[in-house]
Amino acid sequence: MSFIKSLDSTTNKNNSLLCVGLDIDLSRIPNAFLNKEDPIFDFNREIILATKDLVCAYKVNSAFYEMYGMYGLEALKQTIEYIKDQEIPVILDAKRGDIGNTALAYAKAVFEVYKADATTVNPYMGYDSIEPFAEWSNKGTFVLCLTSNPGRGDFQTIGEGEPLYIKVAKKVNELNKNGNLGLVVGATNPAELKLIREIALDMPILIPGIGAQGGSIEAAAKFGPNKEGMRAIINSSRSIIYASKGEDFKGAAKAEARKLKDEINKSRRAG
Amino acid sequence: MSFIKSLDSTTNKNNSLLCVGLDIDLSRIPNAFLNKEDPIFDFNREIILATKDLVCAYKVNSAFYEMYGMYGLEALKQTIEYIKDQEIPVILDAKRGDIGNTALAYAKAVFEVYKADATTVNPYMGYDSIEPFAEWSNKGTFVLCLTSNPGRGDFQTIGEGEPLYIKVAKKVNELNKNGNLGLVVGATNPAELKLIREIALDMPILIPGIGAQGGSIEAAAKFGPNKEGMRAIINSSRSIIYASKGEDFKGAAKAEARKLKDEINKSRRAG
Repeated sequence: MSFIKSLDSTTNKNNSLLCVGLDIDLSRIPNAFLNKEDPIFDFNREIILATKDLVCAYKVNSAFYEMYGMYGLEALKQTIEYIKDQEIPVILDAKRGDIGNTALAYAKAVFEVYKADATTVNPYMGYDSIEPFAEWSNKGTFVLCLTSNPGRGDFQTIGEGEPLYIKVAKKVNELNKNGNLGLVVGATNPAELKLIREIALDMPILIPGIGAQGGSIEAAAKFGPNKEGMRAIINSSRSIIYASKGEDFKGAAKAEARKLKDEINKSRRAG
Repeated sequence: MSFIKSLDSTTNKNNSLLCVGLDIDLSRIPNAFLNKEDPIFDFNREIILATKDLVCAYKVNSAFYEMYGMYGLEALKQTIEYIKDQEIPVILDAKRGDIGNTALAYAKAVFEVYKADATTVNPYMGYDSIEPFAEWSNKGTFVLCLTSNPGRGDFQTIGEGEPLYIKVAKKVNELNKNGNLGLVVGATNPAELKLIREIALDMPILIPGIGAQGGSIEAAAKFGPNKEGMRAIINSSRSIIYASKGEDFKGAAKAEARKLKDEINKSRRAG
């Protein structure tokens, strides 16, 4: 099944736009895991089991796994496989950006080695850094558009008349010949999210930045989805997976995920 | 020794601005290596031994190693270690771009797990995607400024008055408090390279795009270096390492590297 079909199906089945980000940090998981043979995967599996009926997708950020060397990457692979076994789409957030042959090598790594259903890419280098990913028509590729961090103001929002992020959104729309591209728009930009959704039409939008970064859940739920109330993937990572470091970590993660899911649905654009 | 000192020292010792890019491709290395236990590292080692007196640095592009899964990454690690043993600086070209904690995790992967001397990052997300790398004061971080590919025209060169790549160059200069930042400027942009060198002052500039991509060696050598004729790292990958697929591959790589080194020195800005 293509990423987009799998996303729509899981969104409907779980009635959820919530994405749980599995940003592993060994200093924040319950101590009991540290004595296990495979702490990263074991922890992720518990979180997945606790939240899998509440999400539309999972997101794994490559950085936090690369940081732990070969062990981290083995756990990343295992985690992705496990999520796919649950029939939930998984986004490998890798923000790669390179050209031609090199971009193709990155696409192979993400889609063939790690077998992710979707990934994120950086638009700075232009169309030939996006096309090699777009050619994988069954996979989803989200292009960074307007991010949630303070530094977004350095380059993304500049430009007389039409800021850079609008140019990026339009270019991605133009490159979306296989209907498999999407955008990344931080929840810290409610007005811009509304504008970008108009340009993006039915493209999925991955929305980080709620929770710790201060983005509005209400705005993300209201302006993120398309006209049918779909195709918004609202991500929360640490507030869910590290809701508790105690023995109740699973229950705490589940409760936090349910709370966020419900909060999102309360403001969610109706279909 | 810091990256910048190591770069200056190797540039002087070998009288060279040439950087050899070890872009591994198992379909292009001599067949004999494919029967070996460790074809990637074994091939790289031969190329390094053949060219190490002719270069100022080596560059390894992460994509081509990630594509081969865990085996590729082990070979990447080994290759970097081997280059460092030869006392030559090595740039892990990873073009990472993420923020805060996540950027820090990438910096740890590049500088602690793979132990590279320098790396490349993407500026799209702004200052908070560059600073976590810049804090590693002994390591070099090259920020993408104006790349060599056709797609550079999509976003990098736009903007009324001041194009985006100039804004990036200025911002990197401003962030260069530890004197360890540099820029990536493709050799396909001779006039812009001249302009960027004026902004960059003494920052090192990594210059890809000669050879197959059609960038001018003469312009790279003339406009890339600082006033002392230093701090330009002119990269060539496939034209050197795949100069021959036959038994003479080492000699052919060495001859091509020497030819490029000499061509660069012929046009090199005098110190």
